[in-house]
Amino acid sequence: MPAYTAPTKDMQFLLHDLLNVSKSDIEGYDELEADFTSAVLEEAGKLASDVLAPLNVVGDTEGCVLENGVVRTPTGFKEAFEKIKEGGWTALDCDPEYGGQGMPYVLATAVGEIFVSANMAFNMYQGLTHGAYSAIHAHGSAEQKAKFLPKMVTCEWTGTMNLTEPHCGTDLGLMRTKAEPQDDGSYKVTGQKIFISAGDHDMAENIIHLVLAKIPGGPEGIKGVSLFIVPKFIVNDDGSLGDRNGVSVGKIEEKMGIHGNSTCVMDYDGATGYLIGDMHKGMRAMFTMMNEARLGVGLQGYAQAEAAYQNAVIYANDRLQGRDVTGAKNPDGPADPLIVHPDIRRNLMDQKSFVEGARAFTFWGASLIDKAHKSGDKDAEGLISLMTPVIKGFQTDKGFEMATQAQQVYGGHGYIEEWGMSQFARDARIAMIYEGANGVQALDLVGRKLAQDGGKHVMAFFEMVKNFIKENDGNEALKADFLEPLKKASKDLQAAGMYFMQNGMKNPNNALSGSYDFMHMFGHVCLGLMWAQMAKASMEALEGGASDVEFYNTKIATGRYYMARQLPATSMHLARIESGADTVMALDAANF
Amino acid sequence: MPAYTAPTKDMQFLLHDLLNVSKSDIEGYDELEADFTSAVLEEAGKLASDVLAPLNVVGDTEGCVLENGVVRTPTGFKEAFEKIKEGGWTALDCDPEYGGQGMPYVLATAVGEIFVSANMAFNMYQGLTHGAYSAIHAHGSAEQKAKFLPKMVTCEWTGTMNLTEPHCGTDLGLMRTKAEPQDDGSYKVTGQKIFISAGDHDMAENIIHLVLAKIPGGPEGIKGVSLFIVPKFIVNDDGSLGDRNGVSVGKIEEKMGIHGNSTCVMDYDGATGYLIGDMHKGMRAMFTMMNEARLGVGLQGYAQAEAAYQNAVIYANDRLQGRDVTGAKNPDGPADPLIVHPDIRRNLMDQKSFVEGARAFTFWGASLIDKAHKSGDKDAEGLISLMTPVIKGFQTDKGFEMATQAQQVYGGHGYIEEWGMSQFARDARIAMIYEGANGVQALDLVGRKLAQDGGKHVMAFFEMVKNFIKENDGNEALKADFLEPLKKASKDLQAAGMYFMQNGMKNPNNALSGSYDFMHMFGHVCLGLMWAQMAKASMEALEGGASDVEFYNTKIATGRYYMARQLPATSMHLARIESGADTVMALDAANF
Repeated sequence: MPAYTAPTKDMQFLLHDLLNVSKSDIEGYDELEADFTSAVLEEAGKLASDVLAPLNVVGDTEGCVLENGVVRTPTGFKEAFEKIKEGGWTALDCDPEYGGQGMPYVLATAVGEIFVSANMAFNMYQGLTHGAYSAIHAHGSAEQKAKFLPKMVTCEWTGTMNLTEPHCGTDLGLMRTKAEPQDDGSYKVTGQKIFISAGDHDMAENIIHLVLAKIPGGPEGIKGVSLFIVPKFIVNDDGSLGDRNGVSVGKIEEKMGIHGNSTCVMDYDGATGYLIGDMHKGMRAMFTMMNEARLGVGLQGYAQAEAAYQNAVIYANDRLQGRDVTGAKNPDGPADPLIVHPDIRRNLMDQKSFVEGARAFTFWGASLIDKAHKSGDKDAEGLISLMTPVIKGFQTDKGFEMATQAQQVYGGHGYIEEWGMSQFARDARIAMIYEGANGVQALDLVGRKLAQDGGKHVMAFFEMVKNFIKENDGNEALKADFLEPLKKASKDLQAAGMYFMQNGMKNPNNALSGSYDFMHMFGHVCLGLMWAQMAKASMEALEGGASDVEFYNTKIATGRYYMARQLPATSMHLARIESGADTVMALDAANF
Repeated sequence: MPAYTAPTKDMQFLLHDLLNVSKSDIEGYDELEADFTSAVLEEAGKLASDVLAPLNVVGDTEGCVLENGVVRTPTGFKEAFEKIKEGGWTALDCDPEYGGQGMPYVLATAVGEIFVSANMAFNMYQGLTHGAYSAIHAHGSAEQKAKFLPKMVTCEWTGTMNLTEPHCGTDLGLMRTKAEPQDDGSYKVTGQKIFISAGDHDMAENIIHLVLAKIPGGPEGIKGVSLFIVPKFIVNDDGSLGDRNGVSVGKIEEKMGIHGNSTCVMDYDGATGYLIGDMHKGMRAMFTMMNEARLGVGLQGYAQAEAAYQNAVIYANDRLQGRDVTGAKNPDGPADPLIVHPDIRRNLMDQKSFVEGARAFTFWGASLIDKAHKSGDKDAEGLISLMTPVIKGFQTDKGFEMATQAQQVYGGHGYIEEWGMSQFARDARIAMIYEGANGVQALDLVGRKLAQDGGKHVMAFFEMVKNFIKENDGNEALKADFLEPLKKASKDLQAAGMYFMQNGMKNPNNALSGSYDFMHMFGHVCLGLMWAQMAKASMEALEGGASDVEFYNTKIATGRYYMARQLPATSMHLARIESGADTVMALDAANF
């Protein structure tokens, strides 16, 4: 069975060497002293290794079962969920007014990674609840908040988000689910929603569904969509549970992976719902949930790669096969371990340098969210809004690719289910699809985010890269291995942006045909920047006499790999983008 | 359920416009008139669409079951296998002396693609048999051939190859299975083999296992390995079946995909075996089988991508979602079909241009095999030997990637099993692993094939590319879109080879660290050459007044896409290679 150990040392490095959280002026960050964060992460790691990781294969093998209209989760999930609740893990960054602990999002992100790496399907029950909590917290009325949030903070009640219908996914304007106003101010919601993660299960007393629907007579398309709270059991005014609401599970989908999470078809048949926020403004409220969810999905991408990587390393050290061409490393054994072979190292270094870079990028993103939310910093908000599709799209594509590479290290043993490596790849695959397929992320990035606020945020990003390079100009240790590749990659990215500006006007397809490549370039430049910053922080720690010399040297060496072996992808992406839309759009639809 | 239609028009184009088979001087090619090959391919396509494709999902869902020591294949497999036998499809390119039809390998390759696209797991029962047939045909004694081949040609008896053991895959020198000589000239084979595809099933009277084992007292390691025929039932001298041999199925593996094929643990317990070829020279005989198998696996890569692509195109035309930004294409409908969106087209064009390029590469490879085998052409043999790891490694990596992209077109519907898109990706995944994991292919290419016969074959390949560019120098229609990108990519590939020569001497890791990238570069250059040749053939057909103008124009446009959007990958691979081994090998094993 695959093992998992939380990378707490790496996380501490990011929080304290790279982001310097406890010295930051972001509200609440002063609490994040190294001892405190270390204790929290170690405790989360223990729970992940001891309780969640052993259930990962169980969830995959047993899956969820629909019996007499109720979903049964895999053996052990219920008990594990109780432990998560008891430990207060569900409340970490929630509002103290509703029972939360009010911790910064960056700490919740680190804990989230640990839980997702250990058991992605399991963690989704909590993750979806947090998303629903955020939407109600941001857009619900005072009464709604008081009624629903305290139980959601503790995960006594869990949450879901209901967007997709059989005929519409990305294009939610086509939605058919309707919500008819009732005399008491509530609505009757009727329609079918599909792909509802954690749609039903046996681990909570109640499930709070957030459902997008149209109020008859409203505007056409996406402008006529409203958001509703539809509880599985009606909640009485005294907080007790009342009647079963008119919502039921049509079926559970058979999927490629995340079998431990129940992906449900939900049938709403005149179910009682309560409008959240303004009528017809449901998409705005839903976006609160989706933006948070997209960051969470981007995290799933590298978190699955991390779990797969850890096991690939164990196998590469254990499995004896072939000899080091430069001389036997295990001369007394029948063969050398796999890890002596250069191509196995290439494979592992791809994984390691991606995962650590993506973790830095994600933690930095989380700190921008804290800055935006806690300090009302509009620039931070604009920057994370720009980065969200990159974190989601790039990290989930790469995360799946890396999980697949980890599987490859096992050879045939990676293809059989016994070793658990197939599950990492199958589970990671969904992250490229849900919360907006990655093609839609690319479209969001190029079609919307680049030009947002007059292009201010992308300019700010380029400025940040430029400044970093300039500030460290005299740093010979950084120059050749980090600054120069970063400069080159950033120049490629700017050239691509310039191409879009010059050619997208006369034909928007020139920009849209290159959107996917642009998203990947952007991801590479962000990880390149992270690596340059991590290398700098590591060098400074070494100069400052840090005792763990090996840790910091490994960090620098891993960064060098990323700069030398991953960053050159930007030139390929640029060449593709600059070839324009003509070859992409040449064929008539009938000639495919 | 996914549909499949054999791309017979495309195959006819390759056979007759590109390879000009019936005008070639390769022995037997004069039979390959267009009418004849068309009739064969249409018939194979009918069988594939009507019989094999509908069983693909059945095989995935039901899988194979081990009951009372015997493997039961999925519903319908047995009847379908009878149809394949009745149609004589198993005998297509086999030796007429043993009941084969003696057709060229290139035709068998085209038919093979059709069957593999329709149902990869099913086709493996026949494919493995063909591999075993080839090894016995090449290395068996006259008596062995007479006894085993006729029934294997008809697939009344099927075959397997037994290499891997629990502790050794790539490094077969570690093998423990032993074969003890008996007084009657036979051997008693004892040991455990794993990952044996088609190891047992209920579709044939007998199964002929080819088993690698060590004869006690022989040389250490790989030089002491011999190859044995171990039939499931002993074959009497009159050809009738005798006693059950001492071989049994330990278990069937649970796998990520190809559930319709029984992947068995085989236990040999003093089973009677017959030595094939010379004692301790088993690897040579096994390589006959493996080289053929590697080409077959390279074919599986693009054949699965083809099947996935066909369904992605259907979905992209059917599914209405969003609007073309340049103006509605389906103004009377609620939305436009997915295929109007540039990023969906990028995705589909990636698939189309890869599959058609890989098909050309594979057919060309098959024609080289015919040339080598039928005309004893040593240059052709050297060239295909060089190309084998490229066809296997590059095409299966890309095939999986493209099947994954096809799945992505379906959004959430691609992740649930109902639509069948997950299966294409899961099935395609194995092709990157078996018959030598792709890292081993890269090692074979760079560590062995490049330098084979003094580097003669790689030089011949570069010469071929150079000559093609030179011969068409004045062709303005080809120049900018095809010749120049090909020249650039070929130059990158040569530079990488040069880097290996100059830096691999002082440290072989400089070459081995870049082997995987080199394999991919090589694949891109080969597909680039194929596309340039296909574009030229298409232009000539149009100039010659071919009636199907749209077909040829589509071919040229698809080629332009490959050259503009895929070939630029070579510069990225070159940059990685030229960064050398230092960053790859920097870490101590303990620091991963």
